[in-house]
Amino acid sequence: MPRLRLALAQSNPVLRDLEGNSRQVVDTVRQAAEQGADLVAFGEMAISGYPIEDLAMRPSFLAAAHERVELLAGELAAAGLGDIPVIVGHPDGPFEPRLLGTSNAPTAIAQNAASVLQGGRVVARYAKHHLPNYSVFDEYRIFIPGDELLILRLRGIDVALIICEDLWRDGGPVGRVLHADAGLLVVINGSPYERDKDEVRLPLVTRRAIETDTIVAYVNLVGGQDDLVFDGDSVVVDRDGGILARAPQFEPHLLLVDLEPEAATDAPLADDIRRVELTAGGPDGSPDAGTGGAPAGASGGEKPAIALDVAELPDDRQQIWNALVLALRDYVEKNRFPSVILGLSGGIDSAVCAAIAADAIGPERVFGVSMPSRYSSDHSRSDADDLAERIGLNFRTEAIADLVLPFETQLGLTDIAAENLQARARGVILMGLSNQEGHLVLTTGNKSELAVGYSTIYGDSVGGFAPLKDVPKLLVWELARWRNAFADERGETAPIPENSISKPPSAELRPDQTDQDSLPEYAELDAILEAYINGGASIAEIVDSGFDRGTVERITTLVDRAEWKRRQSAIGPKISRTAFGRDRRLPITYRPTSV
Amino acid sequence: MPRLRLALAQSNPVLRDLEGNSRQVVDTVRQAAEQGADLVAFGEMAISGYPIEDLAMRPSFLAAAHERVELLAGELAAAGLGDIPVIVGHPDGPFEPRLLGTSNAPTAIAQNAASVLQGGRVVARYAKHHLPNYSVFDEYRIFIPGDELLILRLRGIDVALIICEDLWRDGGPVGRVLHADAGLLVVINGSPYERDKDEVRLPLVTRRAIETDTIVAYVNLVGGQDDLVFDGDSVVVDRDGGILARAPQFEPHLLLVDLEPEAATDAPLADDIRRVELTAGGPDGSPDAGTGGAPAGASGGEKPAIALDVAELPDDRQQIWNALVLALRDYVEKNRFPSVILGLSGGIDSAVCAAIAADAIGPERVFGVSMPSRYSSDHSRSDADDLAERIGLNFRTEAIADLVLPFETQLGLTDIAAENLQARARGVILMGLSNQEGHLVLTTGNKSELAVGYSTIYGDSVGGFAPLKDVPKLLVWELARWRNAFADERGETAPIPENSISKPPSAELRPDQTDQDSLPEYAELDAILEAYINGGASIAEIVDSGFDRGTVERITTLVDRAEWKRRQSAIGPKISRTAFGRDRRLPITYRPTSV
Repeated sequence: MPRLRLALAQSNPVLRDLEGNSRQVVDTVRQAAEQGADLVAFGEMAISGYPIEDLAMRPSFLAAAHERVELLAGELAAAGLGDIPVIVGHPDGPFEPRLLGTSNAPTAIAQNAASVLQGGRVVARYAKHHLPNYSVFDEYRIFIPGDELLILRLRGIDVALIICEDLWRDGGPVGRVLHADAGLLVVINGSPYERDKDEVRLPLVTRRAIETDTIVAYVNLVGGQDDLVFDGDSVVVDRDGGILARAPQFEPHLLLVDLEPEAATDAPLADDIRRVELTAGGPDGSPDAGTGGAPAGASGGEKPAIALDVAELPDDRQQIWNALVLALRDYVEKNRFPSVILGLSGGIDSAVCAAIAADAIGPERVFGVSMPSRYSSDHSRSDADDLAERIGLNFRTEAIADLVLPFETQLGLTDIAAENLQARARGVILMGLSNQEGHLVLTTGNKSELAVGYSTIYGDSVGGFAPLKDVPKLLVWELARWRNAFADERGETAPIPENSISKPPSAELRPDQTDQDSLPEYAELDAILEAYINGGASIAEIVDSGFDRGTVERITTLVDRAEWKRRQSAIGPKISRTAFGRDRRLPITYRPTSV
Repeated sequence: MPRLRLALAQSNPVLRDLEGNSRQVVDTVRQAAEQGADLVAFGEMAISGYPIEDLAMRPSFLAAAHERVELLAGELAAAGLGDIPVIVGHPDGPFEPRLLGTSNAPTAIAQNAASVLQGGRVVARYAKHHLPNYSVFDEYRIFIPGDELLILRLRGIDVALIICEDLWRDGGPVGRVLHADAGLLVVINGSPYERDKDEVRLPLVTRRAIETDTIVAYVNLVGGQDDLVFDGDSVVVDRDGGILARAPQFEPHLLLVDLEPEAATDAPLADDIRRVELTAGGPDGSPDAGTGGAPAGASGGEKPAIALDVAELPDDRQQIWNALVLALRDYVEKNRFPSVILGLSGGIDSAVCAAIAADAIGPERVFGVSMPSRYSSDHSRSDADDLAERIGLNFRTEAIADLVLPFETQLGLTDIAAENLQARARGVILMGLSNQEGHLVLTTGNKSELAVGYSTIYGDSVGGFAPLKDVPKLLVWELARWRNAFADERGETAPIPENSISKPPSAELRPDQTDQDSLPEYAELDAILEAYINGGASIAEIVDSGFDRGTVERITTLVDRAEWKRRQSAIGPKISRTAFGRDRRLPITYRPTSV
């Protein structure tokens, strides 16, 4: 059988930074070449970052990306890397708009493309067929689908090339891979992390390998991009479904693997399959010996074998923690914030946010502010102080009593208006310090609170990034316990004060207030939210599953009415199937009905 | 030729209010019956309101809408209105999810449907074929397309029924109408207002009438729904392209028209066209005499002829003003706010917002607050006072000096941080009064400001609704002048002080500040924004069209970086092709490149 040393480049591009991402490609291909790679594949849109959203509508951006890929081919050759075929994902265009009749509406002018670079030129190009248009994806809106399957012949091996969603759909390109009798299927992906996603993704890759009787090489992006976190987890699966190589999650990685795919045959191809002959690069430098099962790569047999590289997935809580840390780090670094600031209430949410921030960018770049009011308990200050000390972050106290009183007196505010005033004074403090000192403000609300609108708009909801936006309250506690145990195992200081975990949660906007004055127990709340939002269950169905009707009606009404608050909430990492805002579009104006 | 009295019901549904919208249908059909209508057609999704967004993913909502339509058929019959065929738009489902391979993603389970109700039953149903997925529309994401054309045979006339986007696309249902030899094409629509849209919409209807050789009856919704404003403007066009009837814009209307469509023939139909026989209702009560060109409706000839009803479109500025007024009114009324509150700076934006609010809900429900600082000019107070008096709104003054000073001193804020503090103190005042007294807060920023982020986040951007969100600064001035002239013509008090129109705009956050300290002249700014955002032009192209490179680079960078502010901005009516937020999705995290 022919042999091929494949390199999967799990890279972390910066969106729209065509130059920087191209430099990343050259550097990575150089590393791959040093390790004797015969073929290098990068993720979906590795040249532009992903998702580019409505930038796909800008002709000048598409033209720049197109030109950048041509230039990159030349740059690789100039760097002495022209022999190795390199697959990169990028937006391509501008093309003639897809016809939408006479509506004269803005229509797609771009394709989601993969180009194959070799010898200083773009030698082949593939356009994604299946454009996902669900959940966080809007691709059918912005891209023109491709309709041709591409086969690269390299070292006597037929390599089929597809992009992300193409792998998920039955029929289409995947259906034709078997027909084309390819030996290797390379899939370049921009597949965001979701909790338990590896339970869907790996079985899919495995199934496709068996169905198509090819080795499947799945390369994914890594990194945070606004609400999305790409987790990497690139993998190569043999045609019997066994894992040959797997990259670690949540970090850039160059995954090398020696493969022995089935040799190419000269069976005729269908009209919509295009085959492109690549020359064989690598240390032997000999051109491809052709087809017929001859061991074309055999002359490269003197390469020392590459070590097995199969990363293990950490457990669920660690995966989530890593996702939250990477999302925050990339939001801070890619947007070039020097530091972050957040209010420390002594409660669990702000404690977990602070710990995530410290893990992401180091405690010296994290600024915590305790902002006690006349209603703040002693423990709210001491727990915040304890947290700051455990983590080693920058800490200051700004009491709000003297700031709140003038507003309260001048405007005559009482009850809920007076309660919200305290939260808003804290928002003004954090934004003032942000403007003065340059910090990114973190808002610490969790997914359960956001779902029911249990926050003060322009108060505790103030901030540019929300680390816990997609983390329900019960999971916040779970993560806190996990993180402390993780520290204990390593003999490090547990970052989160035990008291912040164990005490009853409270907004402390009036004396002796607790969250459960307004909300059911969080276990009950989170279960109702899961059923109503993620499960799409009706009120009747939730009641039938064992919850009190009054509670269900109250909570679902809060959820519906909180949509306008969620529309005004900050960016935050998505870790579950259904977050808010990013993949949910709901009306604000309506009269409720109980369905 | 057979005759038909058609009623187009241009109604204003409330989203999700299935019961209330159904009562509206019964009441309107009763009025139509009293005027001898033979067929009544309502707009797209008139039963649910439109657009329903991701409610289309909720099985229980779809089931409720489906059942509501069945019940409505019975209610019409019970009200003695069962004889008249009634066409209503609604979401239908839940259906089996559209297949998306193994991705296990939430997929469409709904159709965008039109049901024909007669004799207490749903006698026919059509599902929209073409699902728009551009601009403000996400229908391909949430609906399953239909694939069958429906012909209703009534009084010897073949009536084809399609939905909105079906009319805009060449081929598809429209292409088959001609083949089916229909006499009348009824199109039910949810077509939002855009500036100059009638210059696209009416020519389209005219062209389709001529192409298909049918009378085309186009019925649209009216009313505000979050960012969208449906303008009505329902129209009936003869097969030679002449206007037979036209409803006024921006108000509910029942448009009646006597038609003489071509008689149905017995030509065979293609497989994908379904014909349903309706019985003839109306005063004669005789069943349809059948086909063959016999004047089936002749026995109804004793009806007195209906008066010609052809509304004229007002001029451009008045259309925009009406759109902004209706959008605000419906947002307030449908969400049941008692009143609105806004800061009155003496400047043009807040003055125009106040005038719109007074036109929308009456001055007695509008609350203005002057919030002078130490930097406020005398005219900012006197102009606000003058405005309040002209409009007759509720007015109060809350000076901010004593509220700002404690923050500034305690936190040591200077420069931009101190400037923003003033805007945030005003935001806290408005939100405090909103919480205390129940008002909806209006944020008064215009489209030009929002585009470049020339506002203080959590400061002057505070508010639940932004009347000028899609109105560029030059147009704000134009509307102010137009509204004053409109008052003058009627001998009414011009609402907007001349000084607010003529003085140079300023945020007044430091001494002698004007907007042009930070921005180019608004004429230049608006032209650059139009080219960059609406026109999709590159920086090079804008410079080539005659602008200074430094200015263009500065402004386009501001636009790019303001995306995160826009993500956090309030709902506001869309009046142009490209607004912000509602139909633009752009990344926040990126490194800029000049394209």
